[in-house]
Amino acid sequence: MSETKNFTLAVVPGDGIGPEVTTEALKVLDAVAAQHGVTFERTEYDLGAKRWHATGETLPDAELEEIRKHDAILLGAVGDPSVPSGVLERGLLLKLRFTLDHYVNLRPSKIYPSVGSPLANPGEVDFVVVREGTEGPYVGNGGALRVGTPAEIATEVSVNTAYGVERVVRDAFARAQARPRKKLTLVHKNNVLVYAGHLWKRTVDKVAEEFPEIAVDYLHVDAATIFLVTDPARFDVIVTDNLFGDIITDLAAAISGGIGLAASGNINPDRTAPSMFEPVHGSAPDIAGQQKADPTAAILSASLLLEHLGLTEAARAIEDAVTADIEERTGVARSTAEIGDAIAKRAAG
Amino acid sequence: MSETKNFTLAVVPGDGIGPEVTTEALKVLDAVAAQHGVTFERTEYDLGAKRWHATGETLPDAELEEIRKHDAILLGAVGDPSVPSGVLERGLLLKLRFTLDHYVNLRPSKIYPSVGSPLANPGEVDFVVVREGTEGPYVGNGGALRVGTPAEIATEVSVNTAYGVERVVRDAFARAQARPRKKLTLVHKNNVLVYAGHLWKRTVDKVAEEFPEIAVDYLHVDAATIFLVTDPARFDVIVTDNLFGDIITDLAAAISGGIGLAASGNINPDRTAPSMFEPVHGSAPDIAGQQKADPTAAILSASLLLEHLGLTEAARAIEDAVTADIEERTGVARSTAEIGDAIAKRAAG
Ligand SMILES: CC(C)[C@H](C(=O)O)[C@@H](O)C(=O)O
Ligand SMILES: CC(C)[C@H](C(=O)O)[C@@H](O)C(=O)O
Repeated sequence: MSETKNFTLAVVPGDGIGPEVTTEALKVLDAVAAQHGVTFERTEYDLGAKRWHATGETLPDAELEEIRKHDAILLGAVGDPSVPSGVLERGLLLKLRFTLDHYVNLRPSKIYPSVGSPLANPGEVDFVVVREGTEGPYVGNGGALRVGTPAEIATEVSVNTAYGVERVVRDAFARAQARPRKKLTLVHKNNVLVYAGHLWKRTVDKVAEEFPEIAVDYLHVDAATIFLVTDPARFDVIVTDNLFGDIITDLAAAISGGIGLAASGNINPDRTAPSMFEPVHGSAPDIAGQQKADPTAAILSASLLLEHLGLTEAARAIEDAVTADIEERTGVARSTAEIGDAIAKRAAG
Repeated sequence: MSETKNFTLAVVPGDGIGPEVTTEALKVLDAVAAQHGVTFERTEYDLGAKRWHATGETLPDAELEEIRKHDAILLGAVGDPSVPSGVLERGLLLKLRFTLDHYVNLRPSKIYPSVGSPLANPGEVDFVVVREGTEGPYVGNGGALRVGTPAEIATEVSVNTAYGVERVVRDAFARAQARPRKKLTLVHKNNVLVYAGHLWKRTVDKVAEEFPEIAVDYLHVDAATIFLVTDPARFDVIVTDNLFGDIITDLAAAISGGIGLAASGNINPDRTAPSMFEPVHGSAPDIAGQQKADPTAAILSASLLLEHLGLTEAARAIEDAVTADIEERTGVARSTAEIGDAIAKRAAG
């Protein structure tokens, strides 16, 4: 007789296509749960554009404290053109990432042979970006003076600490150590952003001493974008700051089968708060509610969630189901639910 | 009887492949000069890694003042691994751009039908990036505390002013107005960098009122990298900040025939100081001195220089010569000088 273990999930479907893709991710989670002796108790949080329009709230602290009590968070997508740019991003998404100390923003990229890449010869692409999640230009330490006048000045401050850089760099090295190719590339712009860039570079050089098996490389962010289109197979683990990570992971998604497949984990490796899993794509309001969105990225994010909870086999079952589904894609359009159903069926296998 | 007009050029060959590609650019300039009734009087400035190693100097103020007296500047490439990262970039290249108020960093991207793109279906790519050149995270207003200790903190400040943003936005609109497609895309990250991002957005919206024929679009920088590989033909004029411009122009070069073809102008549109023209590529020390570098980007930069001096026909002659040369490229390797000779011959044609 086996025991069933229960995990609590906070679910934030969010805006646009968020609810649709989240439905499919939960469907697939449920499909694998039984076989792997687990259940997921879900609490849905109504956060995003609709809530903000109705109440002016983005993420009240009391609700954040409730969310914090869960084992993990599954998020669909956040943002809508009807809300001023930045309100939901800063007040909801980034508030979650920062308050719950999601310092490892994990974004794997893989080219599935059957999925078309916009690149003519992508090669064998299988890398992971470890994007710092709690510092850099994302900290919100900017300001503006004399707004709307010809004398306006607006600043944005990138904050980088030895504490914050070292912990994410260590995480990246540990991931590189666990992978067969054992390569780590630091991406920054230390020839211009010399203070932050040198902190990153020195930290990587220092931690590298503890990982003699890892081959370490450095690229300026501009050069990294070149290699991402001319030779993406060269990458194994990339570690980079919050903003550069944002930029290169969208590019990485684009070259490897598109943003419809790109999953991510906002991870708190110290487990002092729940980690959060979400597709890299946005809320795509133009196709919302039409069952046109590809839920694969949300489903793969659920797989990363299982992995984080230690349910490695269940995570693998989803990944394998997705791989099998992708391999049989013919270009015939399926609805969001049809894709979810197909993957759930395979995953329940 | 036609009169010969003389222009003075400050030439900074720089490091690595810089001197080789500059030689070819000057060769081509000379080849077109006679036909177009101009001469170029050149003064070479020995700046870069060798000078720094010998004297510790990057760009002494007295030399900068001499350079300032010229009609234009031609630069090869700057930077060498033997010099700590940032020393030559900040002390030489950025010092020139900032002091001479090169607020328009102009970077055209074009796919030549005969040149292989890493993209399977690039489409008809012909856009120009107007990158702000004197503000943003490039200002050097960063700092660090307790360097080398676990309590280190390093900051980088992005400075953006209404003055600085409006002048570059106006320049971009004027360029869009002069192009057949009349499209302008602002690239920023105003959902996270809300202070700087909103200044940029408001400025574009305001200036747009004076250019009713221009179709205006906004993209977050991460989304822009996606479109640059999935649909680069959608772009006409892109206006963006210094750092985002750095990143997307390397990507733009990569998708359109490579960094060997990407030219740039650091332009002072008010002509209060000479503008500077340089290839987008770096000094590539690994292939320096071997006649392996493609001088085309440097030659196209010389064409931008002629254009800026009002020598439109001469500029066109170089552009046409380059296009003809590129169209006949067979993949057989030619030396740097051979490519320069071939283009010079055609341009003189
Ligand atoms: C929506 C936005 C705030 C977010 C980011 O910039 O991190 C998104 O682009 C992402 O990559 O998850
Ligand atoms: C060398 C470096 C300082 C420079 C920049 O970042 O502007 C280069 O990458 C460029 O794009 O011209």
